[in-house]
Amino acid sequence: MSKKLTKREDGYSKWYNELVVKADLAENSGVRGCMVIKPYGYAIWEKMQAELDRKFKETGHENAYFPLFIPKSFLSKEAAHVDGFAKECAVVTHYRLKNAEDGSGVVVDPDAKLEEELIVRPTSETIIWDTYRRWIESYRDLPLKINQWANVVRWEMRTRLFLRTAEFLWQEGHTAHETKNEALEEAELMLNVYAEFAEEHMAMPVIKGLKTESERFAGAEETYCIEGLMQDGKALQAGTSHFLGQNFAKAFDVKFTSKEGKREYVWATSWGVSTRLMGALIMTHSDDLGLVLPPKLAPIQVVIIPIHRNDEQLDAISVKVNEIVKELRKKGVSVKYDNRTTYKPGWKFAEYELKGVPLRIAMGPRDLENGTLEIARRDTLEKKNISQDTIVSYVEKTLEEIQNNLYNKALDYRETHITEVNTFEEFKDVLNNKAGFVSAHWDGTTATEDKIKDLTKATIRCIPLNNKIEEGKCIFTGEKSVQRVLFAKAY
Amino acid sequence: MSKKLTKREDGYSKWYNELVVKADLAENSGVRGCMVIKPYGYAIWEKMQAELDRKFKETGHENAYFPLFIPKSFLSKEAAHVDGFAKECAVVTHYRLKNAEDGSGVVVDPDAKLEEELIVRPTSETIIWDTYRRWIESYRDLPLKINQWANVVRWEMRTRLFLRTAEFLWQEGHTAHETKNEALEEAELMLNVYAEFAEEHMAMPVIKGLKTESERFAGAEETYCIEGLMQDGKALQAGTSHFLGQNFAKAFDVKFTSKEGKREYVWATSWGVSTRLMGALIMTHSDDLGLVLPPKLAPIQVVIIPIHRNDEQLDAISVKVNEIVKELRKKGVSVKYDNRTTYKPGWKFAEYELKGVPLRIAMGPRDLENGTLEIARRDTLEKKNISQDTIVSYVEKTLEEIQNNLYNKALDYRETHITEVNTFEEFKDVLNNKAGFVSAHWDGTTATEDKIKDLTKATIRCIPLNNKIEEGKCIFTGEKSVQRVLFAKAY
Repeated sequence: MSKKLTKREDGYSKWYNELVVKADLAENSGVRGCMVIKPYGYAIWEKMQAELDRKFKETGHENAYFPLFIPKSFLSKEAAHVDGFAKECAVVTHYRLKNAEDGSGVVVDPDAKLEEELIVRPTSETIIWDTYRRWIESYRDLPLKINQWANVVRWEMRTRLFLRTAEFLWQEGHTAHETKNEALEEAELMLNVYAEFAEEHMAMPVIKGLKTESERFAGAEETYCIEGLMQDGKALQAGTSHFLGQNFAKAFDVKFTSKEGKREYVWATSWGVSTRLMGALIMTHSDDLGLVLPPKLAPIQVVIIPIHRNDEQLDAISVKVNEIVKELRKKGVSVKYDNRTTYKPGWKFAEYELKGVPLRIAMGPRDLENGTLEIARRDTLEKKNISQDTIVSYVEKTLEEIQNNLYNKALDYRETHITEVNTFEEFKDVLNNKAGFVSAHWDGTTATEDKIKDLTKATIRCIPLNNKIEEGKCIFTGEKSVQRVLFAKAY
Repeated sequence: MSKKLTKREDGYSKWYNELVVKADLAENSGVRGCMVIKPYGYAIWEKMQAELDRKFKETGHENAYFPLFIPKSFLSKEAAHVDGFAKECAVVTHYRLKNAEDGSGVVVDPDAKLEEELIVRPTSETIIWDTYRRWIESYRDLPLKINQWANVVRWEMRTRLFLRTAEFLWQEGHTAHETKNEALEEAELMLNVYAEFAEEHMAMPVIKGLKTESERFAGAEETYCIEGLMQDGKALQAGTSHFLGQNFAKAFDVKFTSKEGKREYVWATSWGVSTRLMGALIMTHSDDLGLVLPPKLAPIQVVIIPIHRNDEQLDAISVKVNEIVKELRKKGVSVKYDNRTTYKPGWKFAEYELKGVPLRIAMGPRDLENGTLEIARRDTLEKKNISQDTIVSYVEKTLEEIQNNLYNKALDYRETHITEVNTFEEFKDVLNNKAGFVSAHWDGTTATEDKIKDLTKATIRCIPLNNKIEEGKCIFTGEKSVQRVLFAKAY
């Protein structure tokens, strides 16, 4: 298989699909809409998980595990929730197969029909709140702050690797609180945790905001989100945090005895990020040569490739390289020495470029003589010859520089792609010719939002949290508005 | 809810069930056969995962993720495998719900029937080997050594928390090799990894052995296992490692081009341990007061409880305790200071005993005056007053002692519960009056094995790997035998 990618300008979507497969991140499986996450892609996801998990624990959350299946009747208990989630889902109706009478294989045993169908969880609010009813008796049991790492299934008709798959991996936090304020604070806290992770680890700038009513999570009273901007000018929702009010407490009858001895419904939040972040990471930084990874999430931060004509040369180079590897590892740098003789250096160069390894070191016989080596940055493609003696500090400094450079480059792109418009003509013009976020006044109605979406495919990504109040007129209806919102075409 | 447990001698099974729930490890959910793993139980599982994952990576394995669903036809491709796994399983037949016409909730949409049913994975050999066909072309792609952490579902009729649940969490390793020998070595290597983990971390001695044909994994040519012995004299299979021969390679047509340019089927292994290990851990060490945890897997290794009559006393104690906490954490000891005033010290003592925290420190006003503290071991229930100055070294030393003591105690129990017998009468007598492993000659036939099982409920747990060859006669048929095997009643 050729490792050469379609160029972004020749087909952004094609470029993305090829990159995901060729960089060994993921591929489609024999099951419609379900992906296989390959070892290299999974290693990046593990790095994401580790950092997020650390942040969740640091903010007082514990992990637990709840069932994969949700009884059908549970979904119906919260009215808005069932409308949002009980539609396209995987339904388990039987619990046994048997041998076909004609010997052709196995068939579903009609005698093994479940009394009540089970739904493969699309999200776990219902099964978790059914459990919380048993766990919460008094204010002493609150707050209850639990996270789950799990797989979920939503029967998407059109799927794309990482961005929209029938099964995906995620974490879902579910918390219960004594007061409305405490729940709101939790929802905001977790939004900030996500934003910090996105910016500091993924090097992806995000806008924090509130969703409009029509884009809210089914069952939430308020949905907070972080929105990133991809290189093609389309927005991507990277994480959400929901203030659920008392909706699930009421649906599942979860009350607590307050300090004053009263029985009250508890207040709730839920929040999640998923393997979709992998898609966001890829599309924020990568280029026509392949993946570009921020050092903090790169499974391999430095790859070292020997350049040699014979075994003696390789042996001599290896002695020096092994010293360097040891020094780098001591500093916590993840380094790989690729001394395979089954592949040529040129092939390896292309391979690690495709896989987004932040730094590549090459060392040949002349380097060995001169005490030098060649080091190349994946982000800028810049090459330098430096002294072997300075390699450790050079690597540490440069990894930090790459991390910052990727963030700043993405921030710069984002900042130059937020366009204020005041008419619907301008609005359409920006969407068609520039893309990115469009900042515009909106009359606050779902009707207008829907019409704009029908006409332009742009949706309101969010009402930014740091919005300034500003009198204006809705670009579509001319009605009064008090603030601008961010529209964009989105993944 | 009373925290008091049924005593083991009054009902081992009842004691176990109560302990799992009362120590906050797990509980049954609203979904038949599926458990909720509670935060404290999950924290132990996370410690197991971390250590196993480290060991897998150290031995050259990478993690990946494969789909939850398996097309029905995949299961039929390997004849033995389908017999073993395609029977009691969760079958997805539809992908949509719709509102019931009578407004009573949601119903399965008959128009959304899948063309081919999907099975929720009971194990992933089939979907993984369907993928490996695309990944393996030449000897350069081998060995392929991949592990997956995942949930699986087997529709068990009689379930018990951790020991046998419809859904459980596990890891499954799936490797592909050039030669038969290499695959056999891999299967043995991973068995040793499991044994080391069981003995060094769970403090649970295990016997390494081979399964007989009838107890082999469906699709395997050889199944290696580790078997532990619980305090009630029943054995528990704690992990298995399978040599799959070329069975799955043939079923899914996975060939590689050898160094000599020939197309050959690859050789395979698979191996797994699951949340069942939690049940093994509980039953190996715990007592009538509750859980007893080996320090290496304890989420809290040391708990500190202040004894005070007023806030001034608590404040003074807290100053000293916080110093100790800091010192212990510096040494990597996981310590919790429970200064809640909503619970009395006596309640806390019982609570942490129930939860198996290895060391409990109590400090009162007199201790503060004298520079002492009281420290209690969970394993021996021994209490000591020691100087505050020596606490760090005392804790480090004692945690190690507890880890060793638990292992030695369990080993002692196991060693005194392997009984050699030479007649079927003796065999039944040991099973009924002493329990444990029974070491006996067996004629090597499945027929005899089955009959013994029918008559006594004992099964052949394994043919120990270190078995000595010894002429003898089958205790049941009197036929010739060349070695003893280990029988036991088992979980």
